Amino acid sequence: MAVDDQQAHDAVEVITAKRDGGALTDSQVDWVVDAYTRGVVADEQMSALAMAILLNGMTRSEISRWTGAMIASGERMDFSTLSRPTADKHSTGGVGDKVTLPLAPLVAACGVAVPQLSGRGLGHTGGTLDKLESIPGWQASLSNQAMLSQLEEVGAVICAAGAELAPADKKLYALRDVTGTVEAIPLIASSIMSKKIAEGTAALVLDVKVGSGAFMKDLDRARELAETMVALGTDAGVTTVALLTGMATPLGLTAGNALEVRESVEVLAGGGPGDVVELTLALAREMLTAAGITDVDPADRLADGSAMDTWRRMVTAQGGDPDAMLPLARETQVVPVPASGVLTRLDALAVGVAAWRLGAGRARKEDPVQAGAGVEMHAKPGDTVVEGEPLLTLHTDDAKRFARAQAALEGGIEVAPGGTQHAPRHTPPPLVIDRVSA
Amino acid sequence: MAVDDQQAHDAVEVITAKRDGGALTDSQVDWVVDAYTRGVVADEQMSALAMAILLNGMTRSEISRWTGAMIASGERMDFSTLSRPTADKHSTGGVGDKVTLPLAPLVAACGVAVPQLSGRGLGHTGGTLDKLESIPGWQASLSNQAMLSQLEEVGAVICAAGAELAPADKKLYALRDVTGTVEAIPLIASSIMSKKIAEGTAALVLDVKVGSGAFMKDLDRARELAETMVALGTDAGVTTVALLTGMATPLGLTAGNALEVRESVEVLAGGGPGDVVELTLALAREMLTAAGITDVDPADRLADGSAMDTWRRMVTAQGGDPDAMLPLARETQVVPVPASGVLTRLDALAVGVAAWRLGAGRARKEDPVQAGAGVEMHAKPGDTVVEGEPLLTLHTDDAKRFARAQAALEGGIEVAPGGTQHAPRHTPPPLVIDRVSA
Repeated sequence: MAVDDQQAHDAVEVITAKRDGGALTDSQVDWVVDAYTRGVVADEQMSALAMAILLNGMTRSEISRWTGAMIASGERMDFSTLSRPTADKHSTGGVGDKVTLPLAPLVAACGVAVPQLSGRGLGHTGGTLDKLESIPGWQASLSNQAMLSQLEEVGAVICAAGAELAPADKKLYALRDVTGTVEAIPLIASSIMSKKIAEGTAALVLDVKVGSGAFMKDLDRARELAETMVALGTDAGVTTVALLTGMATPLGLTAGNALEVRESVEVLAGGGPGDVVELTLALAREMLTAAGITDVDPADRLADGSAMDTWRRMVTAQGGDPDAMLPLARETQVVPVPASGVLTRLDALAVGVAAWRLGAGRARKEDPVQAGAGVEMHAKPGDTVVEGEPLLTLHTDDAKRFARAQAALEGGIEVAPGGTQHAPRHTPPPLVIDRVSA
Repeated sequence: MAVDDQQAHDAVEVITAKRDGGALTDSQVDWVVDAYTRGVVADEQMSALAMAILLNGMTRSEISRWTGAMIASGERMDFSTLSRPTADKHSTGGVGDKVTLPLAPLVAACGVAVPQLSGRGLGHTGGTLDKLESIPGWQASLSNQAMLSQLEEVGAVICAAGAELAPADKKLYALRDVTGTVEAIPLIASSIMSKKIAEGTAALVLDVKVGSGAFMKDLDRARELAETMVALGTDAGVTTVALLTGMATPLGLTAGNALEVRESVEVLAGGGPGDVVELTLALAREMLTAAGITDVDPADRLADGSAMDTWRRMVTAQGGDPDAMLPLARETQVVPVPASGVLTRLDALAVGVAAWRLGAGRARKEDPVQAGAGVEMHAKPGDTVVEGEPLLTLHTDDAKRFARAQAALEGGIEVAPGGTQHAPRHTPPPLVIDRVSA
């Protein structure tokens, strides 16, 4: 995929080809991604192309080539020297989605190496690194060598992706963020998959979230994204499977950084909310199968404490103290149940925005986050609730934030009337909606 | 249309509204055009918006508001102090289209003031200022005061548009040129009309070219552009009419700067090619009617020499010598007729690109042009031709350019076989295809 340093194509020619509904040639794709990374294609040209891609789409073959060109823009990692198979997981992001935290040590405890390169949160969905950084002493940045050593010795590592991995994607993502072109499925799929393929994992399980709190609000688009990513992974020789999972309501009973670490530790201790346990085990089974391990039940590794042991060693290896007190927010405020009955709606987006406004998230990537801030939930859809009892507890270091968090929750909570004895039936939708494989 | 200096809208909100197929509100249009001119909306944001406009379109009301916002970005001129009515002409650009040169003095000789703010050429279509600059001493830049004086005293002025007229359009046009977004009809129409309305003419005649050598290759799109511009002018209180005219073959027998000045002077002297005379008179009649003058036949003003007198005074007023020898190219090369018969095709784009490659045009706006370069035609479609006789004469200062010019002509020339006595009938299509009025 080497490209002459001389301008092999013209940016306007590539833009107009896509604008007019055509498919870009391999050579056009290679050139435009490389030239954009080198600054030969200008930001205003790439944003026009991104809008044309968003509105006119891309063929599978174009997306595959585009992904390859983004991988070629940086370095590739190599885990082939490890003594065990590798598997990674990627979630498209949701509210209260802390699954990476118990999942990585759990799968490692089953004999698979888990190289989990993660990011920080932006907007209403949390970031895995933000959550782990609430553990005193824990460090997100590792050298490639330190990462490999930890994978060999502990089996799991969750750390920041280096700047050398798919630099074209980093530049393009920042551009899409300010030009209304984030929502293009070809660009979402190639962004995610270029990093995962460059990272060098042999197996990959994708958790594509669907619902108000997710990036994909409807099932058709989520399925299209999942199918596109599974095809990209498969084409690149990575065993790839996707689960479509619900994100109409938050996952678990917490949304926030330290709050979610605490809940993750509960899961590793054999407890924790049912939905978090269910999704953690479902993803673990997929990762093990994709990595060729079929004789271990991850539920046993939660029960026997080996997943917790791996967690403690993983945190310690990155400078964290697994026994340290996690930060608590200075202020709390209770949101009471508005009426007795059955809770029918606890909207993921509303809770996510409330947690963000309380200080758990950031609006711009340079903003700080509060470790203790977030939303604690005392009931989930389907639960019977009694008027006036606590429904949520809001946590923040800054009491002035409560009002805007409460405003975000407006319209996000619904209770179907009825006494606690004659409550209507309410069955929440299944957590795992569908599975997409090659 | 004053806009608060504070960021009244968010660029991504405006881009996504258009991306998702919605109409922008008046407030969004005012804000985004103003904020782009001030640099608050970045180039990469405006190019994404321009692509979304190109692919999703704009309503008449949005285009009208957008045009108004571009006018509001700069100064407006005022010709109301002149003692006679004003009328202007705009051509969307073609090959060999020198009509502005005889037209402006002709209409002025009929009693209408013609303020013709013009541009330089880019690509295969020539620029009026480039043509006039081949006249020794002639200056394109005039102060507003000098322009007004010349309009009052001579009746016609052809000069460069000042930087103060619709600066938003200048910035946006440069951006569209490098981002594949030139072809958006709402942006073409608002670009042309914002300058013409800001210029302050009371009447405007548009020459919308259709065919291979024109910006609009097909009649439907040309008609859509014409109707959009006529509506914009009418809404702004300018009496506006459009002619749709053919540009499948060059206009007249020359394409090039000094070559076209020479042909224009022939027309002013009462001769010249029939198609140039026909179009000049058709546009002159439209301009006179739009300006309310119905008792003068412009053909009389060509015949009695008064149009030529006005031309000489117009050139002289801008420092040019109407009697000076026009520059001649140092080298010429004849392209012979390939076969005897009737010339059925002499493609406008092929001739335009050949003239450009000979040095008459420029690829980038900072490139120089050759005054003497271009293509001289010895036959037009419908003419009987004899193999081996001269069909074209190529002119350039640099003989190395002949080969690439010849290559541009390949496939652009067709002769229907048959002896000169039994040639098949070939009637060229009408020059004026249709007329669009409010």
